[in-house]
Amino acid sequence: MAPLDANMSLGEFELIAKYFNRPTSRALLGPGDDCALLAAPSPGSHLAISSDMLIEGRHFISTVAPDRLGHKALAVNLSDLAACGAQPMAFTLAISLPRVDEGFLAGFSRGLFALADAHAIELVGGDTTAGPLSVCITVIGEVAPAQMLRRDGARAGDDLWVSGTPGDARLALEVLRGTVALPGDAFERVRRAMELPQPQVALGLALRGLASSAIDVSDGLIGDLGHLRECSRVGATVEVDAIACSDVLATQPLALRRRCALAGGDDYELLFTAPAQGRDAVAAAARGVGAQVSRIGRIDAEPGLRLIDAGGQSVIDTFSGFDHFRS
Amino acid sequence: MAPLDANMSLGEFELIAKYFNRPTSRALLGPGDDCALLAAPSPGSHLAISSDMLIEGRHFISTVAPDRLGHKALAVNLSDLAACGAQPMAFTLAISLPRVDEGFLAGFSRGLFALADAHAIELVGGDTTAGPLSVCITVIGEVAPAQMLRRDGARAGDDLWVSGTPGDARLALEVLRGTVALPGDAFERVRRAMELPQPQVALGLALRGLASSAIDVSDGLIGDLGHLRECSRVGATVEVDAIACSDVLATQPLALRRRCALAGGDDYELLFTAPAQGRDAVAAAARGVGAQVSRIGRIDAEPGLRLIDAGGQSVIDTFSGFDHFRS
Repeated sequence: MAPLDANMSLGEFELIAKYFNRPTSRALLGPGDDCALLAAPSPGSHLAISSDMLIEGRHFISTVAPDRLGHKALAVNLSDLAACGAQPMAFTLAISLPRVDEGFLAGFSRGLFALADAHAIELVGGDTTAGPLSVCITVIGEVAPAQMLRRDGARAGDDLWVSGTPGDARLALEVLRGTVALPGDAFERVRRAMELPQPQVALGLALRGLASSAIDVSDGLIGDLGHLRECSRVGATVEVDAIACSDVLATQPLALRRRCALAGGDDYELLFTAPAQGRDAVAAAARGVGAQVSRIGRIDAEPGLRLIDAGGQSVIDTFSGFDHFRS
Repeated sequence: MAPLDANMSLGEFELIAKYFNRPTSRALLGPGDDCALLAAPSPGSHLAISSDMLIEGRHFISTVAPDRLGHKALAVNLSDLAACGAQPMAFTLAISLPRVDEGFLAGFSRGLFALADAHAIELVGGDTTAGPLSVCITVIGEVAPAQMLRRDGARAGDDLWVSGTPGDARLALEVLRGTVALPGDAFERVRRAMELPQPQVALGLALRGLASSAIDVSDGLIGDLGHLRECSRVGATVEVDAIACSDVLATQPLALRRRCALAGGDDYELLFTAPAQGRDAVAAAARGVGAQVSRIGRIDAEPGLRLIDAGGQSVIDTFSGFDHFRS
């Protein structure tokens, strides 16, 4: 099968071509041949590649606005490139649709291409088919191997940082589940965090040479910190209330606030470490790209995770990563 | 989300890691970080990229042996690289599973890696999630732009060729649908064609510099020839009975034989064109890689498609491409 060469009737094929086939500049050969042909990365750079699949009812609700779904499907992949300090180059899209719905396609492609344009990357190929609604995007970026942000570089004594205000996406989910009530405008704000996450690509690029390790927060801060600790073979201490909090989340009870921030999922912020002597440089790099960062703890030689409050008192760890098979 | 960083409980995560995380040599950083890091292609080469999504009930039946599904999911993507004359480098896998079934995972990964090993390519990352069974693979290869086989290079007077014996996969499908009956051993042979297609990667590489255009036959020979004609702005004459036929398909009535060969789908053979003066060189290149090829017609300046029999008499075109939304 071919890039965006839909297994559909001619009318449906043309409809899809209408929404997804755009002129490409970086790709020598975009959608329409068996493969996309893409120029190699800059000399000295390697390819950074990530794939994510989003399934209706699992990663998004059926009532999500199509433009937001298009945005998010690409955003979660760009977030992986951000966590590696990679410069995005191009992406492919495979999409399964229960039916060819022009309104859906118009909205989905609008949201997808708005984010693609914001990061100057092109759709170079993919596949469309009939089936349950799901979206699989593969992003390709470039990064010099020595500059790549990895999960295994955290060292004892490093500061632990996180970008943004994690927890809002989970708060929005709890509202949809009916376990939390919020006024309409407050709900709309956290819903934007859930449906329109902004991948921290510029921050990832700015942290090259400064951060000792990084990971994107997609499964909850504590869960993703666990991956980082495991890969780096270190422990960590997190001051739970040092994590920056949105105005909306700040109105919630302390226990819920902590749970959303530490174990929310779907944040697409960067969790990263840097040597303490680079503290000012990290803050300056973040300011330079307009990103908010909070220093939330430190890396320990002692294995395990310690959660403390502002007074240094231990907070019991009842938090776990977001689990798509259970929650 | 991360390469093969499953959204599952720890036990499920470990089970999946057990079947999909293997040591990589080409990839600097394989499954386990936010992105895979892959060495750039050889100097002068560009990246060839293709994504395909396979959905249960649409592209495969629920009773397919898991090892065959693993094989086919990669094979259909390698076939796209073959059609471009690209050398495969690596692939990513995103898979959605209704449940974590160790028997399924063991079989699927066995079939997947057997084909990957046969082509010396590595799984460098991906995603696993819960959901309806579907598989999305993105393959990355390399090819020098001037050598790439494209769809738009066919010229009037060129010979038209096809590899293998198209039609067996469709015959197997008709048996499963109950419209055709075959003895058990004959059915097993055509079922292998449907479930274990062998991508013509070596033939694609051998045709660089010889073929003027190429496409892989996934939606039926006539349908894919239509894409090639459209991209090259040419017509074609096909001698329908010049297409090589398997022993099993040869036992069927002429009308069914022609329908399967011309409009079957799922063949994953190469349909290609080459100047007539290169006829011997094409035959030698195919022999050199052990591939069967048939010269089945010619490219015409006159637009449109003409089907003829061995006597040059017109055969009415009642054939159309395989259509996943209708059939």
